[in-house]
Amino acid sequence: MSVISFLTDFGTSDPYVGIMKGVALAIAPQSTLVDLSHEVDPQDVQGAAFLIASAYSWFPEKTVHVLVVDPGVGSSRSILAAEADGHFFLAPDNGLLTRVLEIMPPTALVRVENPGYFLHPISNTFHGRDIFAPAAAYIATGEPLANLGPPVSTTDVVKLCLAAPYTTDSGDLGGAVVAVDRFGNLISNIDEDSLRGMSQTGDMTDLCVHVGESVVKGLAFSYQDVAPGRLLAIIGSRGFLEISLNRGNAATWLGHGKGAPLTVSCCGRPRNS
Amino acid sequence: MSVISFLTDFGTSDPYVGIMKGVALAIAPQSTLVDLSHEVDPQDVQGAAFLIASAYSWFPEKTVHVLVVDPGVGSSRSILAAEADGHFFLAPDNGLLTRVLEIMPPTALVRVENPGYFLHPISNTFHGRDIFAPAAAYIATGEPLANLGPPVSTTDVVKLCLAAPYTTDSGDLGGAVVAVDRFGNLISNIDEDSLRGMSQTGDMTDLCVHVGESVVKGLAFSYQDVAPGRLLAIIGSRGFLEISLNRGNAATWLGHGKGAPLTVSCCGRPRNS
Amino acid sequence: MSVISFLTDFGTSDPYVGIMKGVALAIAPQSTLVDLSHEVDPQDVQGAAFLIASAYSWFPEKTVHVLVVDPGVGSSRSILAAEADGHFFLAPDNGLLTRVLEIMPPTALVRVENPGYFLHPISNTFHGRDIFAPAAAYIATGEPLANLGPPVSTTDVVKLCLAAPYTTDSGDLGGAVVAVDRFGNLISNIDEDSLRGMSQTGDMTDLCVHVGESVVKGLAFSYQDVAPGRLLAIIGSRGFLEISLNRGNAATWLGHGKGAPLTVSCCGRPRNS
Repeated sequence: MSVISFLTDFGTSDPYVGIMKGVALAIAPQSTLVDLSHEVDPQDVQGAAFLIASAYSWFPEKTVHVLVVDPGVGSSRSILAAEADGHFFLAPDNGLLTRVLEIMPPTALVRVENPGYFLHPISNTFHGRDIFAPAAAYIATGEPLANLGPPVSTTDVVKLCLAAPYTTDSGDLGGAVVAVDRFGNLISNIDEDSLRGMSQTGDMTDLCVHVGESVVKGLAFSYQDVAPGRLLAIIGSRGFLEISLNRGNAATWLGHGKGAPLTVSCCGRPRNS
Repeated sequence: MSVISFLTDFGTSDPYVGIMKGVALAIAPQSTLVDLSHEVDPQDVQGAAFLIASAYSWFPEKTVHVLVVDPGVGSSRSILAAEADGHFFLAPDNGLLTRVLEIMPPTALVRVENPGYFLHPISNTFHGRDIFAPAAAYIATGEPLANLGPPVSTTDVVKLCLAAPYTTDSGDLGGAVVAVDRFGNLISNIDEDSLRGMSQTGDMTDLCVHVGESVVKGLAFSYQDVAPGRLLAIIGSRGFLEISLNRGNAATWLGHGKGAPLTVSCCGRPRNS
Repeated sequence: MSVISFLTDFGTSDPYVGIMKGVALAIAPQSTLVDLSHEVDPQDVQGAAFLIASAYSWFPEKTVHVLVVDPGVGSSRSILAAEADGHFFLAPDNGLLTRVLEIMPPTALVRVENPGYFLHPISNTFHGRDIFAPAAAYIATGEPLANLGPPVSTTDVVKLCLAAPYTTDSGDLGGAVVAVDRFGNLISNIDEDSLRGMSQTGDMTDLCVHVGESVVKGLAFSYQDVAPGRLLAIIGSRGFLEISLNRGNAATWLGHGKGAPLTVSCCGRPRNS
């Protein structure tokens, strides 16, 4: 019994996700199917690359993660299958696996080319149904990746240039909002280690987070560290800096969203913005 | 093989629900996972309290219902596990279980405190992943509630003061809309027994339901009792008075939603509104 | 272990779908439950009739497809159970099965009337819970359709007059948009065979598709056959003509949606629009 997780930009109004699951169950009837999200912004490969990297490790080992955010469907882009950190990943070779492969070098990486694992005829518009779903199901039943296609080196796959934190001219830490969740939490690309490295007291209470015209002083440990309706900065559940509003929506309150720049400074130090 | 149902305000765009399921499946791989809803209004504990009370009993006995509407995550609020009416419930101690415990006294009720059933480190922002999902999975595998933490009396848990029907000065029955569904049905907190008690003919055709400026005379037995486009009052599938529009959307048509007051009177009787 | 798929207009905010699944699992705990879609426009029987016809065959044989788009719930409309093409279907007798039964004559067709397969008391507003879910679960466990109720002839069930392609006065092929997906693809009711029959070169590159003021020349084989931001016509994954915008949203760009007329002509031939 293995788990197949699905991350797509298909939404759930159309029958596409259900059809993929039907195809998978016809091949791997004992598998358990889990939706990670189908609401990735249409064709937002970068957003999906961040999302899968922060989510996969919470699933059981041997889970097959099917990732279909695929603006190049039907073109010559290839499809990758990877084994990394005890999990399997199936994704278009468009950079979607960039962060996963950065975090954890794959123990196997192949181009999925063996038509014996596809549905035929293969459409040019719905590889999710004709290639991803059946290939994932075969992997879930124990098929070795090597059978799906030839090995490929990580240096030969498409990498996204993902927004990474950087040091500003004034020595501050710069980053960006990479996701906004349903609660309006602004999730950044600034990781806990970078923040700790910047803190002179070690507990990050001396850091100031600047977003738009607002400044949040000190990192909180929980939403309740501030009064309802107040902004806070916190290490979120993904391990990255987030800006939240206790019992409210920080994104709406601030008027900022995906892509907004953030800066982190030491509160006491003079600063050129 | 047991069932775990999920009711949250997490939405389905973010990976939070998928991650909770991944955690649960790692511990209880044989369980069947069902979404009750993830579209509870953010932090609307009262709405969730009504919803779970009208939904749980349709699931198989021994289902574990995981309820995460938790504005106090990371604070000192505790987490409850209850067994009631042959079902298991896991919820923050914030009143979410108010109606369930009113309907059916629990056969077991504990504070979930045993860290052996949690993921570590425990984040301060996502107890759904670190406490609720693993604890639910252990319960699904048969772990006795008593192992999760110390017993607590129902008198010592947080109760919401839920909107209840009341008798008006003029002897009418007053209530409120507690939910509006996708079809625009206005679902009230006035139960069938209260209505029957008020009817002098026993069949409720002599009752008048007042909502805003509109009056609906008599209770219908099905949507088709009135012409398309006409309002009707009916005992809905949850056992409560609902206002509907045959083949239309009553909420839009009336311009009323959650919180709107309703009054039920005997149609013939003089009435002071 | 069998599969039950669900197609409804219930949405996923309300607990209706979860409750149906709870009911089904109480009867058929070994079944695997798959959502096809719950976002059918409220009471859009015609949209659901197209959707199920293009989706069912991708599921494993013996899948039970539960179809609840049912504006007549609680009226005298009956409920049908069909076996066709190795799949089972359960739907109100309101035309929802029109296309499925057109494509594939049923090997069994009954009116679902045997109260032994229902939950009691039967509500007048939620047959999904009280009739569809339990009946589907019994079928999933192997109950013969004949036990659910008396046989009925396909000539005696309600048929929708579904929009079909037609020949215009000038000899062109006329059709309509029957669905718009999340990506803004306009999905028509013009099937591949009709298009091939019209093409004089056989490869459909000589066809011109007219939608509103726009004309697309030639059918593409993949989205990448045109530059990003350009319109294209293509045989979509359902086997029908679709209008798409490479890396964009055709529906928004054209300002057209469900119901919009399309015409297909031979590009070279003079044409009266």
